[in-house]
Amino acid sequence: MGNFRAAITGVGYTDLSKRSGRSVLALATEACSAAIKDAGLTHDDVDGVSSFMVMHDSVHSQAVSTALALPTLRYSLDVDLGGEAPCHLVTQAAAAVSTGQARHVVVFRALNGRSGPRVGTMQFHGMGAQFRYPIGYDAYLMYCGMWAQRFLHETGQTELDLGAVAVSQRAYAQANERAYRREPLDLDSYLASPIVVDPYRSSDCTVEVDGACAVVVSALDAARDLPNPPAVIAAGAYRAGARHGLDIGDHLLWDDYTRNYTSILRDELFAAAGLVPGDVQFAEIYDCFTSTVLMGLEGLGLAERGGAGELVRSGATSLGGRLPVNTHGGLLAEGYLHGMNTVAEAALQVQGRAGHRQVPLHDVCAVTSGALMDGSALLLTSDR
Amino acid sequence: MGNFRAAITGVGYTDLSKRSGRSVLALATEACSAAIKDAGLTHDDVDGVSSFMVMHDSVHSQAVSTALALPTLRYSLDVDLGGEAPCHLVTQAAAAVSTGQARHVVVFRALNGRSGPRVGTMQFHGMGAQFRYPIGYDAYLMYCGMWAQRFLHETGQTELDLGAVAVSQRAYAQANERAYRREPLDLDSYLASPIVVDPYRSSDCTVEVDGACAVVVSALDAARDLPNPPAVIAAGAYRAGARHGLDIGDHLLWDDYTRNYTSILRDELFAAAGLVPGDVQFAEIYDCFTSTVLMGLEGLGLAERGGAGELVRSGATSLGGRLPVNTHGGLLAEGYLHGMNTVAEAALQVQGRAGHRQVPLHDVCAVTSGALMDGSALLLTSDR
Repeated sequence: MGNFRAAITGVGYTDLSKRSGRSVLALATEACSAAIKDAGLTHDDVDGVSSFMVMHDSVHSQAVSTALALPTLRYSLDVDLGGEAPCHLVTQAAAAVSTGQARHVVVFRALNGRSGPRVGTMQFHGMGAQFRYPIGYDAYLMYCGMWAQRFLHETGQTELDLGAVAVSQRAYAQANERAYRREPLDLDSYLASPIVVDPYRSSDCTVEVDGACAVVVSALDAARDLPNPPAVIAAGAYRAGARHGLDIGDHLLWDDYTRNYTSILRDELFAAAGLVPGDVQFAEIYDCFTSTVLMGLEGLGLAERGGAGELVRSGATSLGGRLPVNTHGGLLAEGYLHGMNTVAEAALQVQGRAGHRQVPLHDVCAVTSGALMDGSALLLTSDR
Repeated sequence: MGNFRAAITGVGYTDLSKRSGRSVLALATEACSAAIKDAGLTHDDVDGVSSFMVMHDSVHSQAVSTALALPTLRYSLDVDLGGEAPCHLVTQAAAAVSTGQARHVVVFRALNGRSGPRVGTMQFHGMGAQFRYPIGYDAYLMYCGMWAQRFLHETGQTELDLGAVAVSQRAYAQANERAYRREPLDLDSYLASPIVVDPYRSSDCTVEVDGACAVVVSALDAARDLPNPPAVIAAGAYRAGARHGLDIGDHLLWDDYTRNYTSILRDELFAAAGLVPGDVQFAEIYDCFTSTVLMGLEGLGLAERGGAGELVRSGATSLGGRLPVNTHGGLLAEGYLHGMNTVAEAALQVQGRAGHRQVPLHDVCAVTSGALMDGSALLLTSDR
């Protein structure tokens, strides 16, 4: 949570594909270079690089700094986190430029997530593994699936609510030339898609891709001299739930399945920005699975407890609705760049540069990273 | 480099041994708990944890947060860095408390560095490995040794200058009940110790130990209400040299072996604190090997180019000298907690709590982390 003088000034992507045929270093370098150019900067202006990875599936920021031929690297972080990282790293970059550690930090995530180590196959070797593995409870979507099942049960929501998220986001993807999944999806075809782990159908799950995404975080005074309108970092917050970390299965120990990290960091996040949930005009919610969108909307106070599905089914979160959500199609449709692209989409929208999918009111955006009991969030605003 | 309102308020250690017989989590938890208590805080006050590791040889900050039963984890970083990390992580924690992300962050390093994965056996699999491995050039002390050899050659220094560092620091260790190597060392016994990698003798190399060390970084306003005098974080800086990162052997490509990261970040570091090298009253310099102390003293401007050895031989860096250096005996003698204990010693001295080895003038201290072309540094001051 912060008191920053910082903004996102540029974003960059590679193509997203099933098989890039390229090294992760090449992907990272291309996305970072594109973001730097998009910000109106040259490589000589950038003095910070940060990133995150799991399973050694990416490259270090120093290697990318070298590949970019940055003249000076004053700030660098390589963080051992997954989907909870993007907003957290943008927050750290905001703190860095606010305290003079750097002027322009490029934050990236790069992975061959489909042709290389697949995130969906990642296992967690915490203390609980000895109990989980013998019963075949060993993959990330199983943890999230059980959590989602209980969340639906406790809040009275159903597969129709999950399906509404998938359908709404797929419609956005059709206005996003970058999206990997662009074929139309309606509720019937959603319900016809195969169950992977109950309650998840294939359409509830993000799509693994090869690719990279980067954003440039700049000191606010520098941002104001650049061509794009600054996407001001009004607040950033991170939270890990109590008892988290010894094993990813630890969430089974909590007694309230309807809460996740977004509900825990919400009050601090909004207070730091001097805003309230009602001020949010659109949201980009981390969506490794459809369920996390419902949890995130409720957790942030953008929907009532148990009311997120109804909000989505009403069309309010679709383009033209009163609270557009995951306007790039989300990770579900654009592709799983581990949520870095969720932040980039938020910045593009706040800057008014989202083209066919631009939301009309784009002064205040809530962004999240992460799914369960630890994660991070940002409030991005126009430079008012 | 910064503009912080932050201080180190407490430090904690475990015993240092050859074989702890305990998990790294247990070591980390003990050191963090000790640091929290030392700061005059309870676990309920602490809302941030960060750490670093190489080779998966430690534990994540979320696990330690859980073990400490912290009620709220608002800030957490696990950084994939080695010896360049401690000052960098303290800088990040200072930025975090300065921007309201947390109030009290405990920064730790824990490892079974002797009975578990040994840092000295770590290999680097960068792009240059294909050229290095066939000739047996594959261990960290070989990289540093070749760098040191060239450094001595270019600056006209000799084994007597390296030896003076080892002898001076060992004398401090005798006043440090925590130090692993406390047997007396004079220049004759230094010269009689076996060559490991030319120019390094065994006495030039840090000693691998099992153990943990932690420091608490607090918001300055909170620090002023705590029992220990604050060790104010006046500035922090990180720098990675150009062309670093693709392979650790890359330093062979540079054309000036007498420079390392300390010379590159020096001007920014001192400017941020409004200080000059002449203001430094004592220094804690990262010392995986004796040579990095000479490089660090010269790089920071605390000695002339090529003059660090003479400074040490003159007794100026010994207890009672005009510029005490590595007052705990350094990593060479206290033990290799990867430089976290270098920062902790600096804080203890600035706070005036270093007992028999307390330096008389302790208002301004320079601290470094890292050996070659990337690293970090702090200026700690009393609360003037």
